[in-house]
Amino acid sequence: MIVVMKPGSQRGQIDGVIGLLREMGAQGRPIDGAQPPVIEILECNGKLDRRRLEQASMVERVVDGATPLLAVGRKAGEQTLEVPLGRRAVIGGQRLAVVAGPCSVEDEGRLLETATAVAAAGAVGLRGGAFKPRTSPYAFQGLGEDGLRALARVREKTGLAIVTEVMSPERVACVAEYADVLQVGSRNMHNSPLLRAVGEQGKPVLLKRGWSATLEEFLLAAEYILRAGNPNVILCERGIRTHEEYVRNTMALAVVPEVKRLSRLPIIVDPSHGTGRAHLVEPMSRAAIACGADGLLIEVHPSPEQAWSDGAQTLNFQQFRDMMTALRPIAAACGRSLEAGDSPPTDATDA
Amino acid sequence: MIVVMKPGSQRGQIDGVIGLLREMGAQGRPIDGAQPPVIEILECNGKLDRRRLEQASMVERVVDGATPLLAVGRKAGEQTLEVPLGRRAVIGGQRLAVVAGPCSVEDEGRLLETATAVAAAGAVGLRGGAFKPRTSPYAFQGLGEDGLRALARVREKTGLAIVTEVMSPERVACVAEYADVLQVGSRNMHNSPLLRAVGEQGKPVLLKRGWSATLEEFLLAAEYILRAGNPNVILCERGIRTHEEYVRNTMALAVVPEVKRLSRLPIIVDPSHGTGRAHLVEPMSRAAIACGADGLLIEVHPSPEQAWSDGAQTLNFQQFRDMMTALRPIAAACGRSLEAGDSPPTDATDA
Amino acid sequence: MIVVMKPGSQRGQIDGVIGLLREMGAQGRPIDGAQPPVIEILECNGKLDRRRLEQASMVERVVDGATPLLAVGRKAGEQTLEVPLGRRAVIGGQRLAVVAGPCSVEDEGRLLETATAVAAAGAVGLRGGAFKPRTSPYAFQGLGEDGLRALARVREKTGLAIVTEVMSPERVACVAEYADVLQVGSRNMHNSPLLRAVGEQGKPVLLKRGWSATLEEFLLAAEYILRAGNPNVILCERGIRTHEEYVRNTMALAVVPEVKRLSRLPIIVDPSHGTGRAHLVEPMSRAAIACGADGLLIEVHPSPEQAWSDGAQTLNFQQFRDMMTALRPIAAACGRSLEAGDSPPTDATDA
Amino acid sequence: MIVVMKPGSQRGQIDGVIGLLREMGAQGRPIDGAQPPVIEILECNGKLDRRRLEQASMVERVVDGATPLLAVGRKAGEQTLEVPLGRRAVIGGQRLAVVAGPCSVEDEGRLLETATAVAAAGAVGLRGGAFKPRTSPYAFQGLGEDGLRALARVREKTGLAIVTEVMSPERVACVAEYADVLQVGSRNMHNSPLLRAVGEQGKPVLLKRGWSATLEEFLLAAEYILRAGNPNVILCERGIRTHEEYVRNTMALAVVPEVKRLSRLPIIVDPSHGTGRAHLVEPMSRAAIACGADGLLIEVHPSPEQAWSDGAQTLNFQQFRDMMTALRPIAAACGRSLEAGDSPPTDATDA
Repeated sequence: MIVVMKPGSQRGQIDGVIGLLREMGAQGRPIDGAQPPVIEILECNGKLDRRRLEQASMVERVVDGATPLLAVGRKAGEQTLEVPLGRRAVIGGQRLAVVAGPCSVEDEGRLLETATAVAAAGAVGLRGGAFKPRTSPYAFQGLGEDGLRALARVREKTGLAIVTEVMSPERVACVAEYADVLQVGSRNMHNSPLLRAVGEQGKPVLLKRGWSATLEEFLLAAEYILRAGNPNVILCERGIRTHEEYVRNTMALAVVPEVKRLSRLPIIVDPSHGTGRAHLVEPMSRAAIACGADGLLIEVHPSPEQAWSDGAQTLNFQQFRDMMTALRPIAAACGRSLEAGDSPPTDATDA
Repeated sequence: MIVVMKPGSQRGQIDGVIGLLREMGAQGRPIDGAQPPVIEILECNGKLDRRRLEQASMVERVVDGATPLLAVGRKAGEQTLEVPLGRRAVIGGQRLAVVAGPCSVEDEGRLLETATAVAAAGAVGLRGGAFKPRTSPYAFQGLGEDGLRALARVREKTGLAIVTEVMSPERVACVAEYADVLQVGSRNMHNSPLLRAVGEQGKPVLLKRGWSATLEEFLLAAEYILRAGNPNVILCERGIRTHEEYVRNTMALAVVPEVKRLSRLPIIVDPSHGTGRAHLVEPMSRAAIACGADGLLIEVHPSPEQAWSDGAQTLNFQQFRDMMTALRPIAAACGRSLEAGDSPPTDATDA
Repeated sequence: MIVVMKPGSQRGQIDGVIGLLREMGAQGRPIDGAQPPVIEILECNGKLDRRRLEQASMVERVVDGATPLLAVGRKAGEQTLEVPLGRRAVIGGQRLAVVAGPCSVEDEGRLLETATAVAAAGAVGLRGGAFKPRTSPYAFQGLGEDGLRALARVREKTGLAIVTEVMSPERVACVAEYADVLQVGSRNMHNSPLLRAVGEQGKPVLLKRGWSATLEEFLLAAEYILRAGNPNVILCERGIRTHEEYVRNTMALAVVPEVKRLSRLPIIVDPSHGTGRAHLVEPMSRAAIACGADGLLIEVHPSPEQAWSDGAQTLNFQQFRDMMTALRPIAAACGRSLEAGDSPPTDATDA
Repeated sequence: MIVVMKPGSQRGQIDGVIGLLREMGAQGRPIDGAQPPVIEILECNGKLDRRRLEQASMVERVVDGATPLLAVGRKAGEQTLEVPLGRRAVIGGQRLAVVAGPCSVEDEGRLLETATAVAAAGAVGLRGGAFKPRTSPYAFQGLGEDGLRALARVREKTGLAIVTEVMSPERVACVAEYADVLQVGSRNMHNSPLLRAVGEQGKPVLLKRGWSATLEEFLLAAEYILRAGNPNVILCERGIRTHEEYVRNTMALAVVPEVKRLSRLPIIVDPSHGTGRAHLVEPMSRAAIACGADGLLIEVHPSPEQAWSDGAQTLNFQQFRDMMTALRPIAAACGRSLEAGDSPPTDATDA
């Protein structure tokens, strides 16, 4: 249970509430840096007089449960937040945003080739890992800052917004210097020092759901970022770990409409990690749009079979173009639009 | 590993293969009732001469693995099977099939009211349980044969095809007398005596995936039914059990395009059980259609809050009508159509 | 919510309670065959006057929730039920009971050899499947009644109690004719017609937990059996399906002490299916005993690598003897004992 | 696939192997800082001549798979590593090590009281969080460095080794200044920058398994630490997230004997988080010891119902003493011992 104070509450008023709690046999603890101020009630013996608390000076309200979504919650009638994706696009508006690119930045030539191809097909952002979280210390860990510089140069040539991952608090400033959007990966969704660090800088954050996180944990991770001062968070569903064996993860798409109900943050879907299988990327992208996703994150590589990581789930250029073509009628049927590609008309099928 | 014999193989030829296996140090065992005959190879010591086996009299081929999908598999270029749904509709064709109705048959008046409403909105089948599998022995177990008779009378008045569950082999004949499609529920997907029993009668079968079954187990359950002689199986995804807490089950929609790739059987989706939450039924129905489902199974009741079971996931008539209206543009964008309802034009939103 | 009537309530008194419920705006429904009679309250509008209900004629009590454990629950201070295991042993007493044998009955010679070996090492029961539930219709389905007859003859020669699976209601009488304990397998834990059928006959039942069943569902499955008239149920934990990859299932041993707290039924553990790996059977058997299990179910075969099913999780005779030797000090440390084997002293290690 | 070079390989020899790979159409990449040097082979087109690679200058061997356990693997006959736990104890030897204490350090008085009590009962380490990973930003986040200082002072008075969590690379030096063992929590098992940071300092590390990590991922996380230079890692199983509902997590104890088989690192078990229920801590501790765990991590607090976090899973002093008494006969039956407590003899039961 927490007490939310009114904006502008002074130290004395906060101490007053803590004193009142002590009288009631409870312990109160102001939460560092919360604005408006928030006091956590450490539960003791359940004799709280809630009405009396709510009447104390400058108390806004008393909220049940350990998990109030003070910052990310959606108020009745509120629109989805539009988060900037570079200078030309947003995520969360009528227009769907597709971010595409390789799993990891390998070399600048192939990166530019990929960026050019995905931009032509209608993507508005370029993904690509320079710092890679890998399960094995013997797997490729990314090009590091060289990769970031390559991403920035490709942005200059293509106009695509850059989305790339950051893995530890001390790298946040470095990655933020190059990227348009900082990605916090699935493995780091519970990494609260990192969440605070990306919350304390100004670039938007793409927050991927942990593969075994509950929806509540996911939204609370976003709450960490907003509470640290950064309002611009894009959520991303990327599949959960289950008993299923024919996919790398199970895409749990119901999270999309449920996030829309509970939160004002936009949400996109990553069917590349969500399935782990290239042939499932298009159908699951269709499904994601149909249930309300604000965009997609797609792995694309000139030659997926030669990619240094995640080849099995990566589309080649033709597959990506065909998918974008196939998505447009679905988007239209949902009252959304998708950036027009300049690809020549194709005989796209809808698989 | 199994040996598939050619159609028309005689006992002597089967015994010949078994003898050949014995010479090679392996044990062969003819599988009861398989047509064409199939011999299971019990693995022993790995010295099988596969070529010699394949050259034996009347041997069609030798198949690796414990799980050949001889009957349900899709051959290159093969179309999805169209399974009859009563006299007027099929599942598996260009037209999507929606089966709707209450979780359990409660009384004939409300059943008829529901059937009339869902038919008007475009449903082609009526679901409703007369024999209910319940976790608790203290929960309502269904009206039994009285419920079946009510379903049959409602079919006479509305023309809707009847889909209802059967739970044990000795009831199959009884349920088949009234139903157009026999449902095997999630709890019974692994019940091989029941799978054989519904395979030995003539009505189509709706087979729901077990909530923790793998895709391979699901397809092998269908294989049991086809092998027993019944070609008409409709698969149904209804969500799997995971760590997620805001839904009753996690809808694992990637199974839809994967089934399309592996099998010639049609597949529908049950978002009512798949989410357990009425407000998620429409968005997940949209997603199901967008990724290729051949139809939907939807719980509808005149007053969901008064339903004897599953109220939280059940739509009322207006919600169902609105959903059907919202689904038509998605279906059209996917090259599919949906039975026209005769409901008056509404201001349906696509939420 | 349910109303439990006093033993001996008459139809008129039950109807009286139903009428009273109707006055309160609720619907009551007597549960078929419950003794003492039980009335399910279908919830309507929440205006129930509970006190008035409890004062009605012959009402014993009103129980909250959909899942009362009327029959399987443990009352304060109640001992664990001792269920007979053939004529010479029980499960649930101070002495631990080990049931061992092959996954499936293959031929009588090997079965007798196995039975003799496990009896010599201290087993009191013989397991072996005559009707086998298999995922694939192309896998060995068991010897059927021939297998049952072989089991019965081996009992005559060894004195071991026979535990074997039954898979459908119409086979219950047949299996009960030969077996000492009827096993309901993991795939059938939710099969309520089968649960009722084994509840209506007199032999004890070994009920395995479904691999994705909750503890509540497990206990309610037992409740089905007891409510149908059979008091003698042995629970069995055999592992659940999770994301773990190095085992066939994840043994969820905490269920053992939790069952002891909630229920009066004895519980045994099957580490063969629970791990799927022969080298993990002994350590997990040790753990099972240490946390309070009343016995073990172990797969043993003369040559596991030649078994027709489940070879990877099966012990050979020497491994079984070593395990039994290693278990005795653990059992003693827990205040339990284990049937003395007549095996010669070995240099058993406790690995 | 990786190439492991011989110790002392020079840059030229590494480049030679990379050139050889290029000739074969593959790409080689030296792994930063690996000693002995290791070259990752990025797979391309499968035409590798393995024999030729193995004959190249200074090549030790070529290892299949992405996940070689070069550092944590157990060689035939190798003993479990004994990791120092402060000055007086080790984890991994014949004597079991119990580390106990509060979830989070709250105030020094209660911490000292707890430390004194657990030491008297036989604990050799004191756990307590000063930096707490919490799902909600509104939950208590720990006392920070004040908490570390309190822990250090309590060590002076009790002699207990201090085990406490570190959550980000930039805090490692600070925490290492006070702690005897640095804990990496479940949420951070995949945090490779943190794993490297704790690997680059000298204090032993307690690595908890992620709640949805596979065993392979767990061992590879340890491999990150060892590869960074720190040989002293203690593994800790703390339960996985499953569908089970009566526990906070599912204790997956089979990981204990499997770790013993695959790795030379010691492993302890945390039944407090592993069950989330105080009444299950003792039985699951018994099970953990019986299957081979090298120690336990137990939450203890003077008044669990007043603890600021995790009260439901925390033992009080009497419960902890009783548990330690009950564990000694199990330890003895397994050939292990447990530090003698100085508690007066009690009539401990074994639940």
